Amino acid sequence: MNILIVHAHPENQSFTTSLKNLADEVLNKKGYSVEISDLYEMNFNPVASKQDFQIVENPEYFNYALEQRNAVKKDSLSPDIKIEIDKVQRADLIIFTFPLYWTSVPAILKGWIDRVFVSGIFYGGKRFYNHGGMTGKKAMLCFTLGGREHMFGDQSVHGSIEQYISSIQRGSLAYTGFDVLPPFIAYHVPYISHEDRQKILTNFESYLENLENLKPLEFPKLENFDDKMNPLN
Amino acid sequence: MNILIVHAHPENQSFTTSLKNLADEVLNKKGYSVEISDLYEMNFNPVASKQDFQIVENPEYFNYALEQRNAVKKDSLSPDIKIEIDKVQRADLIIFTFPLYWTSVPAILKGWIDRVFVSGIFYGGKRFYNHGGMTGKKAMLCFTLGGREHMFGDQSVHGSIEQYISSIQRGSLAYTGFDVLPPFIAYHVPYISHEDRQKILTNFESYLENLENLKPLEFPKLENFDDKMNPLN
Repeated sequence: MNILIVHAHPENQSFTTSLKNLADEVLNKKGYSVEISDLYEMNFNPVASKQDFQIVENPEYFNYALEQRNAVKKDSLSPDIKIEIDKVQRADLIIFTFPLYWTSVPAILKGWIDRVFVSGIFYGGKRFYNHGGMTGKKAMLCFTLGGREHMFGDQSVHGSIEQYISSIQRGSLAYTGFDVLPPFIAYHVPYISHEDRQKILTNFESYLENLENLKPLEFPKLENFDDKMNPLN
Repeated sequence: MNILIVHAHPENQSFTTSLKNLADEVLNKKGYSVEISDLYEMNFNPVASKQDFQIVENPEYFNYALEQRNAVKKDSLSPDIKIEIDKVQRADLIIFTFPLYWTSVPAILKGWIDRVFVSGIFYGGKRFYNHGGMTGKKAMLCFTLGGREHMFGDQSVHGSIEQYISSIQRGSLAYTGFDVLPPFIAYHVPYISHEDRQKILTNFESYLENLENLKPLEFPKLENFDDKMNPLN
């Protein structure tokens, strides 16, 4: 199994970075091949723009998705995007490790999705959800946050954690065809003891050891919708 | 009333940019004062990093929120962040205009939130939701997307649009104390006729004319939770 870890944290001694390092170590030990995109270390540019295309087909009116489709056909995506797409195409599983910023991914990681998930490869026309370009691959989120676990849930002060990460898990990963594994969430990280952090690392190690047995989350199947995406009964 | 429009689109002839321009025009005509942060035009840097602080208090272990709190106290935030905070502080209402990228904001706008919503001004300790730093101010989203309206909703193929924007509306805006007005959403934009686009512009003009009568969305009030954020009955 080939694994890509996409990591986004500005401090390489952070606990989030320890989780990334642990995944690298455990998965290598299991005999998997692991690649890492450390976005801060790479100084990854997260801003979708005309510079993403070596040839801009319509410089008079810039449409990002149309330019992506054209650049895929003509192999004219900018090299930094091509490198990331190649990593995704080699991978059987992508693990995203990041601190939750404003109940979502840090901008540098959002921009990795904006720029790398190109139209024509990841999706296009009726190719989405279980017909998306990434079917057969798995993805999962591993993230840290300051809030406590009891603050999230339908009756809790912040509501469910799932709503906040739905634009990543459902709108980006499931939409493009990935099987999305249950997320690994480390709560209250800035405030907990060294011992509690060790427990989280132990739990993450068990999670990783059990990776191949994890059941993906449920998302829509296009067979349950008609041509106009109205639900069939 | 002072209004700040935060705009994020790479093409200044786009329909999203027309919505921004219309808001600017209509609100100026109503006698409001309008400021605009056009993030692409400003070449805004969306990546949270050490460079956000003129003095890094702990260069050995970089903690973004702690550095924010320190920099607020010592007035040592980087100038590009200070300028944006000043605009927010002058504003009674912030309008965000953007195309939905991967069911959320483009990375350049996510990074505006990551870097500008600093700990110590926007929130801190028990200052969040209706006690957040931005209470008394309003905010609203105005965005365009490719999907059709019937594709969103609890029984629909993509589920509710609210889940996808909850990390902005609830996790970022309501959390810091803004009253969040109902979003203005323009569906199916790349595929519709010139006439249908004109109708959307007319609807947005009515929406803007009626701004002061719009009822904010409902979010939690801290008075309904105990000290540990468990719900009181």
